Amino acid sequence: MLDAAASPAVPLSRDADTTLADQLAGRFADRIRHRLIGPGARLPSVRECARRHQVSPSTVVAAYDQLLAQGLVEARRQRGFFVRGGAPAEASEPAAQPAPRAPRTPLPISATTLIRGMFQPSGGQPMPGLGTLPVDWLDEPMLATAIRKVSMQIGRASLQYGEPAGEQRLRRALATRLADHGVQAHADQIVTTVGATHALDIVTRTLCKPGDSVLVDEPGWSVEYARLAALGLRVLPVPRGDDGPDLGVMQRLVEAQRPAERPRLYVTVSVLHNPTGASLSLPAAHRVLQLAQAHGLHIVEDDTYAHLASPHLPRLAALDALERTIYVSGFSKILTPSWRVGYLAAPPALVDRFIDTKLLTTLTTPSLTELALAHCLEHGLLRRHADRVVRQLDAARARAVKLAEAHGCRFAAKPLGLFGWVDVGVDTERLAQVMLDKGWLLAPGALFHATHRPTTLMRINFATTQEARFWRALAAARESL
Amino acid sequence: MLDAAASPAVPLSRDADTTLADQLAGRFADRIRHRLIGPGARLPSVRECARRHQVSPSTVVAAYDQLLAQGLVEARRQRGFFVRGGAPAEASEPAAQPAPRAPRTPLPISATTLIRGMFQPSGGQPMPGLGTLPVDWLDEPMLATAIRKVSMQIGRASLQYGEPAGEQRLRRALATRLADHGVQAHADQIVTTVGATHALDIVTRTLCKPGDSVLVDEPGWSVEYARLAALGLRVLPVPRGDDGPDLGVMQRLVEAQRPAERPRLYVTVSVLHNPTGASLSLPAAHRVLQLAQAHGLHIVEDDTYAHLASPHLPRLAALDALERTIYVSGFSKILTPSWRVGYLAAPPALVDRFIDTKLLTTLTTPSLTELALAHCLEHGLLRRHADRVVRQLDAARARAVKLAEAHGCRFAAKPLGLFGWVDVGVDTERLAQVMLDKGWLLAPGALFHATHRPTTLMRINFATTQEARFWRALAAARESL
Repeated sequence: MLDAAASPAVPLSRDADTTLADQLAGRFADRIRHRLIGPGARLPSVRECARRHQVSPSTVVAAYDQLLAQGLVEARRQRGFFVRGGAPAEASEPAAQPAPRAPRTPLPISATTLIRGMFQPSGGQPMPGLGTLPVDWLDEPMLATAIRKVSMQIGRASLQYGEPAGEQRLRRALATRLADHGVQAHADQIVTTVGATHALDIVTRTLCKPGDSVLVDEPGWSVEYARLAALGLRVLPVPRGDDGPDLGVMQRLVEAQRPAERPRLYVTVSVLHNPTGASLSLPAAHRVLQLAQAHGLHIVEDDTYAHLASPHLPRLAALDALERTIYVSGFSKILTPSWRVGYLAAPPALVDRFIDTKLLTTLTTPSLTELALAHCLEHGLLRRHADRVVRQLDAARARAVKLAEAHGCRFAAKPLGLFGWVDVGVDTERLAQVMLDKGWLLAPGALFHATHRPTTLMRINFATTQEARFWRALAAARESL
Repeated sequence: MLDAAASPAVPLSRDADTTLADQLAGRFADRIRHRLIGPGARLPSVRECARRHQVSPSTVVAAYDQLLAQGLVEARRQRGFFVRGGAPAEASEPAAQPAPRAPRTPLPISATTLIRGMFQPSGGQPMPGLGTLPVDWLDEPMLATAIRKVSMQIGRASLQYGEPAGEQRLRRALATRLADHGVQAHADQIVTTVGATHALDIVTRTLCKPGDSVLVDEPGWSVEYARLAALGLRVLPVPRGDDGPDLGVMQRLVEAQRPAERPRLYVTVSVLHNPTGASLSLPAAHRVLQLAQAHGLHIVEDDTYAHLASPHLPRLAALDALERTIYVSGFSKILTPSWRVGYLAAPPALVDRFIDTKLLTTLTTPSLTELALAHCLEHGLLRRHADRVVRQLDAARARAVKLAEAHGCRFAAKPLGLFGWVDVGVDTERLAQVMLDKGWLLAPGALFHATHRPTTLMRINFATTQEARFWRALAAARESL
């Protein structure tokens, strides 16, 4: 895969074997193919592009012509050049059309633009838009040792399907861990999954049918909106405030639907919410549960950032004792994303249904990494590692906040956890394209809204924005717009 | 988890602390909870049960009363006792109702009865209904060495998400392996998954919407029917003959639908089909592709048993050069089911759409087992292991066939590969319950039909039916019915 995030830092070469137009076209083509510019996005105007790359307008026109010829972009009269749409525009694939009875929410830019961007290998410089901790912060020897220990213990068990619910040893360790958050779950209420994403997928597929409505936080993680939309669900965004969702809006959304169309699910990140970093307050949690009770809602509590937060922050699953809350979490944000171990803890009456969906989607999950994770939990390794990371993150956040504010940015939410929700004063989608030319991958705010809208907000990762040179580059890019 | 498959081999105890009725009720309750008796299944009549367990009818009545009181069964006037239904009967979970516009095929017994049965630890005796090779046939040291080697090489790569398409090293090795089957695929056309099941799920979710029709082989693997039905798809079974599907039926099924409702997908196991063991002939493959071409069908070719078959058997994906065929395979049947590594090879135009669906369902897949598999492929370890297994299976098959025929069973298809499709002359679902009492888990033929129907056929695993004592037990059980 091409290093699309890093290569644009290199200016176009005046004495290369390829013409400037070829180089420019190649750069855009790479980005389009790697979805760093999503389907439907507008390319910069010829004049703006010429200025940005210090080439003549005719060079830009020649480059755009090449992209047209390659079918990567289309020209719209009076409006400019646009990246050609993905699946829905492919007339030869009628099965890709949305279900006629399942109204869909338009996806932000491209459903998977940002996550595809996440997988671009970094060109050595920190990635402010990153959704995970940088690799230097993780403990590779601890993980390698756990794998080797477990691979020697596992023996013949490595030759069979794991248990449908997941390795019992891990589920017991997770039950103990959940008790730290006040969530009382028996190991039998826990089902392991291929990362938290798979847990979210299992829960929604089991509880919802196409055409159903689902309440979500806004801003929120756009890949979650995309996942729900891909299942044919209607996404109903609820504004997320400092201490929780806007309950007035939530109530109106529930009551505005015809009874048969009322949402049955609310998907939320209660602790260190992505992207704002805000956590649900105890009274807000209580009121959310009252509303859920009154309207027969199930709640999916996505606790992906559990290990970066104080264990004492209130969880919905703790308050309602897993009665109507399904708790979901994983270890990509603290141990490694490559193990892909997540889990859900569910009301007893729902467990078997979730296991059935798991069996139909992946059969079981890999035993080795589940047992390695159990090892890390049982020996207190995860806890000690998380303590170190939290201290390191506190220091990084302090530095990043200071730099951000010194460079004229304002925090739209109190800076906490891994992510900052920053107002930079200019449209962050345009800013992101300019910054990409300098080799910095941003996470513009539009990626955190259920419907595409221009915004001056963006999400930063505190671990990767501690250096002054990023903020200087950002300030310069902002001035150039 | 209780050892439900093995414990029934123990007769009811006359001098235990618990009454005979309590013991009998407990045994049924275990089986119902572990889905060895599926929702909707009928319990044996009081008289039959009394005879089978050598207790008085009043003891059986007392046991069934306990099951009634526990809500596990329901009495239907004049018809007997039935296991209470699963999800659809739970009035408190309206979201579980099928989508109103997505007609569903009734599932065989319980969608996941058999796969849940598969996970019951064996009580030491071979499981004739098993879908995989017995653990003794697999090479644990080879797998453990591969894991340890890779875990030492992987280093910092273990701290990041793997590539969205899967580890490139594995995709290259798979492309080489596919060439052995005549399938020309570039590594870029390959996407790794959490076992073949996940690949099938990704493909159908991407290409179909609820209410769409899908053609499937019948008999076939019922979990596949269940998966399709759970996605709201209409399952249209096509009779599978010795050399391929009944093309006349297939054509009529396609043309009988209104144009907008015509199937767009045909899911098939072309080589060593489960449960019959039959493989597609070259002329049949050609005709299937012609029909697919004429009607705009995509074909999903599930090659799960690839490693147990001659590499030279024709694959649809080889004939059509991956134009409208999506090839799916995995390693659960040859290396171990616990690694959960599968993959798909797709037409270039579809690859990105499949990667997007993968990202939305599990993000990436675990790197470690993918690299360990690449190691086994690159060093020829898999090939040598598969050669050994095929020789061992040939010998086992010869023994099992002889014993089966000596005990009055007839093969409904030529015995080949891992599975035999056997006619035992009595209803195999009733037979399965009696055999379970003796500790043998069978795979009755009803589990391989899209609609529940009594059948005298069942699937046997040649690796686990080589012993005379199984066939003697079967003959005795058959006589008792």
